[in-house]
Amino acid sequence: MAAFIENGNRFRLTDPTLAPAAAGYLWNRRMMIQMTCRGYAVSQYMDPEPRKYAHAPTLAAQTFMQPEHRYFAHHPGRFFYVRDDRTGALFSAPHEPVRATPDSYAFEPGLSDIRWVIEKNGIRVELCLELPVDDAAEIWSAKVSNIGKTDRDVAFVPYFPVGYMSWMNMGGHFDAELGAVVCTSVTPYQAVEDYFKNRHLKDITFLAADRTPDYFEVSQQAFEDEGGLADPSALQAGGNLAGGDAAYEIPAGIMQWNLTLPVDGSEEFRFVFGPAHDKAEIAALAAKYLRGDTEAVRSASRAYVDEGLGSFEIESPDAAFDAFVNRWLPRQVFYHGDTNRLTTDPQTRNYLQDALGMVFIRPETTRAVILRAASQQFASGKVPDGILLNSGATLKYINQIPHTDHAVWLVIATCAYLDETNDRSILDEQVAWIDSEGTDSLYDHVTRALRFLAGEVDERGLPLIAQGDWCDPMNMVGYKGKGVSGWLAEASSYAMSVWAEISESRSDSDNAKWLRHEASAMVDRINAHLWDGDWYARGITDDGVPFGVSADEEGRIYLNAQSWALLCGAADDDQKARMLSAIDDQLATPYGIAMFAPAYTKMREDVGRLTQKWPGSAENGAVYNHAAAFYAAALYHISDGDRAYRVLRAMLTEPAAADIAVRGQLPLYIPNYYRGAYHQFPRTAGRSSNLFNTGTASWFYRLVIEQMCGLRGAGDAVVIAPQIPSEWDRCRFRRTLRGATFDVSVERVPGLPDQVVEVDGQRLDGTILRQVEHGRSYDVKVKIPSRVQQD
Amino acid sequence: MAAFIENGNRFRLTDPTLAPAAAGYLWNRRMMIQMTCRGYAVSQYMDPEPRKYAHAPTLAAQTFMQPEHRYFAHHPGRFFYVRDDRTGALFSAPHEPVRATPDSYAFEPGLSDIRWVIEKNGIRVELCLELPVDDAAEIWSAKVSNIGKTDRDVAFVPYFPVGYMSWMNMGGHFDAELGAVVCTSVTPYQAVEDYFKNRHLKDITFLAADRTPDYFEVSQQAFEDEGGLADPSALQAGGNLAGGDAAYEIPAGIMQWNLTLPVDGSEEFRFVFGPAHDKAEIAALAAKYLRGDTEAVRSASRAYVDEGLGSFEIESPDAAFDAFVNRWLPRQVFYHGDTNRLTTDPQTRNYLQDALGMVFIRPETTRAVILRAASQQFASGKVPDGILLNSGATLKYINQIPHTDHAVWLVIATCAYLDETNDRSILDEQVAWIDSEGTDSLYDHVTRALRFLAGEVDERGLPLIAQGDWCDPMNMVGYKGKGVSGWLAEASSYAMSVWAEISESRSDSDNAKWLRHEASAMVDRINAHLWDGDWYARGITDDGVPFGVSADEEGRIYLNAQSWALLCGAADDDQKARMLSAIDDQLATPYGIAMFAPAYTKMREDVGRLTQKWPGSAENGAVYNHAAAFYAAALYHISDGDRAYRVLRAMLTEPAAADIAVRGQLPLYIPNYYRGAYHQFPRTAGRSSNLFNTGTASWFYRLVIEQMCGLRGAGDAVVIAPQIPSEWDRCRFRRTLRGATFDVSVERVPGLPDQVVEVDGQRLDGTILRQVEHGRSYDVKVKIPSRVQQD
Repeated sequence: MAAFIENGNRFRLTDPTLAPAAAGYLWNRRMMIQMTCRGYAVSQYMDPEPRKYAHAPTLAAQTFMQPEHRYFAHHPGRFFYVRDDRTGALFSAPHEPVRATPDSYAFEPGLSDIRWVIEKNGIRVELCLELPVDDAAEIWSAKVSNIGKTDRDVAFVPYFPVGYMSWMNMGGHFDAELGAVVCTSVTPYQAVEDYFKNRHLKDITFLAADRTPDYFEVSQQAFEDEGGLADPSALQAGGNLAGGDAAYEIPAGIMQWNLTLPVDGSEEFRFVFGPAHDKAEIAALAAKYLRGDTEAVRSASRAYVDEGLGSFEIESPDAAFDAFVNRWLPRQVFYHGDTNRLTTDPQTRNYLQDALGMVFIRPETTRAVILRAASQQFASGKVPDGILLNSGATLKYINQIPHTDHAVWLVIATCAYLDETNDRSILDEQVAWIDSEGTDSLYDHVTRALRFLAGEVDERGLPLIAQGDWCDPMNMVGYKGKGVSGWLAEASSYAMSVWAEISESRSDSDNAKWLRHEASAMVDRINAHLWDGDWYARGITDDGVPFGVSADEEGRIYLNAQSWALLCGAADDDQKARMLSAIDDQLATPYGIAMFAPAYTKMREDVGRLTQKWPGSAENGAVYNHAAAFYAAALYHISDGDRAYRVLRAMLTEPAAADIAVRGQLPLYIPNYYRGAYHQFPRTAGRSSNLFNTGTASWFYRLVIEQMCGLRGAGDAVVIAPQIPSEWDRCRFRRTLRGATFDVSVERVPGLPDQVVEVDGQRLDGTILRQVEHGRSYDVKVKIPSRVQQD
Repeated sequence: MAAFIENGNRFRLTDPTLAPAAAGYLWNRRMMIQMTCRGYAVSQYMDPEPRKYAHAPTLAAQTFMQPEHRYFAHHPGRFFYVRDDRTGALFSAPHEPVRATPDSYAFEPGLSDIRWVIEKNGIRVELCLELPVDDAAEIWSAKVSNIGKTDRDVAFVPYFPVGYMSWMNMGGHFDAELGAVVCTSVTPYQAVEDYFKNRHLKDITFLAADRTPDYFEVSQQAFEDEGGLADPSALQAGGNLAGGDAAYEIPAGIMQWNLTLPVDGSEEFRFVFGPAHDKAEIAALAAKYLRGDTEAVRSASRAYVDEGLGSFEIESPDAAFDAFVNRWLPRQVFYHGDTNRLTTDPQTRNYLQDALGMVFIRPETTRAVILRAASQQFASGKVPDGILLNSGATLKYINQIPHTDHAVWLVIATCAYLDETNDRSILDEQVAWIDSEGTDSLYDHVTRALRFLAGEVDERGLPLIAQGDWCDPMNMVGYKGKGVSGWLAEASSYAMSVWAEISESRSDSDNAKWLRHEASAMVDRINAHLWDGDWYARGITDDGVPFGVSADEEGRIYLNAQSWALLCGAADDDQKARMLSAIDDQLATPYGIAMFAPAYTKMREDVGRLTQKWPGSAENGAVYNHAAAFYAAALYHISDGDRAYRVLRAMLTEPAAADIAVRGQLPLYIPNYYRGAYHQFPRTAGRSSNLFNTGTASWFYRLVIEQMCGLRGAGDAVVIAPQIPSEWDRCRFRRTLRGATFDVSVERVPGLPDQVVEVDGQRLDGTILRQVEHGRSYDVKVKIPSRVQQD
């Protein structure tokens, strides 16, 4: 804990060696950047597909975001060398590449900026990275101060490696007119049609400063030479940068100022780094962000992040939880919902779940997402694997592999939107089909999606899995056309039940009846074919072999198959008890509940790619937080708020000192996984993916608001039914819902027999408040029995 | 020159900082490796497509071989740390990553091995890399000797980074039974069909030693930690490797032996490093190469290289030229011809030209290549862009782009094969078509290829260029279907002329007549449409604009358009003189003759990708040795042997001291280019591509043998017509041809009016020796006039 001093909006790490991969992240409408405490960076922007403007020194693969990103000496980063011109002593801020031990160090990622303060040998370097709202550009400010007792001469040398830009063409030069290093390239192509596609691309990477450097260098090789990055030849023996260019050589933006700093003296710098299409664009960006109103830029960037802070705030006995849920969590939800994870073809499943969280931040985004997803549906009712966000986009990577679960998420997102907004007009919106003329209402689209789903079943009536369901790499269970998904059977039943309520509310009783019948028949089939004695099987393979069952040595029990059995109501009380016990026994780890266990250590050709993934990483037996969030949802569903809270809270556990090196991250976001396989691979268990793209964020936020705090819409009414953990004596929260503001205090009262809800001093009969008035503020007090007394 | 001490079969570099990218290369039937003097490596093997077993630390792109490969701190390499256990002093052999200044250093790439001898602080490390003939495996031997005056305790730590193997699964462990570090991975895939494709792949990389290490480490990160590669934490403070594993972490093969070395004492080690499919394969490789007959392995490897040494040897006043041409050049030709550049879909153009050189080494390979290429020809006569070498291969990269020149190379390769072997049976071989039933003779195939070529012309009768000819990136001259290639007009005319001779020899006079007429008509069109006044245009664009003409500011003059005008006989004496003068004025650089000039510095949308490449690199205005070799061929064709020799010799110029950093290579092979654009970018001009894949090697070898030495087959006879450079007073050479051995001495005789050829003491009437007897040795003396007297 010593390393992490939290003040709500900003975290602090005071030792760069304690958690080398600890990173903050920023994004805007065009780009995202993840900066490690030591100065390494992972960034990308949309042009319109994801691209990089700072590259590795080797030709890197174009790929989706990978977990546990690996850093190495020449990894892209942003580095600031400081050389004492009298002694020659060199250090670099934030820490790489020199790795000198700082006298004092603080890495402070905030909501809308990332800051560092490094002190070494009487020099303080303060760094700050901000992003503008609408441009792909990094705005860096740097202040170099003499905090010692004598005058100092120092060389200050920002070094922004640009890396291997292109095998076809790359280079760089200093443009005196722009005051910028301009690194040029041509995106490589061979087919002539790609030339025309590439013409608009931002093939330049530039580093512009707010004042002319004394010296500069553009060639990576000339800069480091024999000295290497830790002791660049160009900075040895008091030398100054030679002012070279890069000609089909790896370029870098490197500038030097020789500063004379009196005691207490300081110098401030401002830089813009990023991609550009041409010189005019560089000039415009430099004018805006170097010479423009810097305070206005900062305010706009804060305002952008504030937009995403949501309409919910909690004050509980758990300050760290509050800070996360009030600021960092909605920020993560907003990142997903506002940028679609910076792809042009989000997986339908992700796209709709990211929109799920947005109902609490900007419900009109959720509305648009639902309608867009439905508009790419096939007339058969089939929901596609990915949603194209612009006309040039194509389905890539995993979106080319057939999965069968997408209809479920269309139902869940639509119901969540209705619960929050009660905007029933969305159901009547006329929506096109991707492969047919004419339009139908959204209601018809969703209904048809479920009818399609109900038809894609085997002879038992269980849903076919094709090459995957929610679990992408479970790709060989059903690739021969026979295997079925137990989880999808449950999720289908659940989706049909909730959609039946919508049908009823529209007096479409035939459909409601059909849905209820289907949902219930599916539950019967689940219990007939998938109950294994103490838990539910995950599915049945092409060869008719149930898996995720007690007979399996690896992959014996899957969390999702239990969570959704609870959600769809398949399990009776005896089954519930057995399942919970099995989960505790087999899936619980010190880092959360694993997605399944034991992890696979060898290929199972009737399960698939999943079983070839590293045991304990990603989907193979990890604490996959998305699955854990489903489990929490199921636990709230069966009113086990304490257990649910523990599942959620485990995702945020601030790493204890001993764990920091393992987790390697600050709890600024919920990562998509912590490594599991705790019993098989204890050394690496608990390690974070360091990847903040995950449907977990939306579910976590929704569960805290709608279940833990228990304030949610339901039809025309509002439900007030908190399920706070028993270790909390009280909590307060505030949220807006249906245009009204609710100030809610929840308090445990010893000896109280039942939960009591008072609205504006009036005791509510039950948990339902009807007729919420737009614009009104409600003062709500919830008294709940104290469970402590039972001991 | 000081840095390069040559002994014919082995070069020597004595300072690793002088030419950091200097590299030797080895290959066998399964793999190739290029090792720099400092320890960095680029290697790949066939499985069946090209794959890597040692990776960068980041997810690298799958791509074709790129020129001017960039090295960086964490680039794959093979490193051997030596730590003095009393003082803690550390160095690494060959040089990286510690970069300690050696007391003595030698890098000695040989024909079938690569050696180093490094001395530092009284310790000598001798390293040797060899490849077996048929396995993808590196065999390393290392000897550590105490050459000082006191006993020494040293830790010897071989470190073989394995890098980022796979995003799906990677790890490693020490297998005590094998005595090997075994790094495992699963080649990533998403589509289920790829699982079945990947199942056979060698997803393991291993390092096995001939004795059990005292300590080991498998995790890259655990090894280097805060110390970094230059001072790994695991080796600091006298520590020993911790014996860890790698679990979804970047693995490395790292072993440690703590040695006590008395004065003059030494220890020897042997390692195998490479890919494997399973443990059994590792065990087999270790048994063969660690515990087997090491001398037999070495002999086999030498024998393999010797197989490729060809049937030609020269002794001239230029010893460096002799060493290159006698050993390194045929070795490079053999590499191409025996491995097809380690691809499964060679470009047809490359495949046939690589086979051209093989006529002097293993003509049966040339024969097989010609027949295979013809068997993939379309029934229309069209020759495909690439030739598939196995049933799973597909056309990739540039082979998916339509080019129009392939027929030309089929003619040239076939004629070269006939000249060398007089094996006319090849012409009657029955060959299938790729898209039609039945077979036809090779003669018919080639003839039909030319008929197809003759039909693919514009209204002027000039050949359409589509998206490229010999020049791949000239992809926008004719993409609209109208642009024509001036070079291809010349090459077509040339090919038709030489094929007319074949037709005549078969008494197919109709065809011969048609070919001669077409060739001659094409020459008329060339002169009508492409002569620009002082040289020939390179082509005419889709919009009817001639380019490569005096009106162009960039790309004014192209070498190929002149060379092939000479070869096809389009130019009269006045035109020749003007062209040669224009070439001297505009294309000559200190590093050879550029392919065109001035290099393009901006996009020309009517020429294409070529103009977007880096000016001076690769095809954009470089000294592209393949084009220079064509020019040399043309110069021999017009009997300008002096100029031709200068063009060829420039490809081998051993870098002068000042150039070493620029060229950065040893003259062990002809690289595909030296950077050109000498007048525009003098700093980088002359820099080598460091890429040994090039059709230049075959042409160079052929020109030396058939033109400079002038001993070649022609129909049933043999021609003896040397064109040695006038600066040579004499030379001797020996070659086998048509089953006979020719020992030829060439001598300049002052005052001699005409060249005189004596065979076994009998003066030959002219230059043609008829009726060569198989098995006989001919003693040939050629006396040529001394040109010096003219001065």
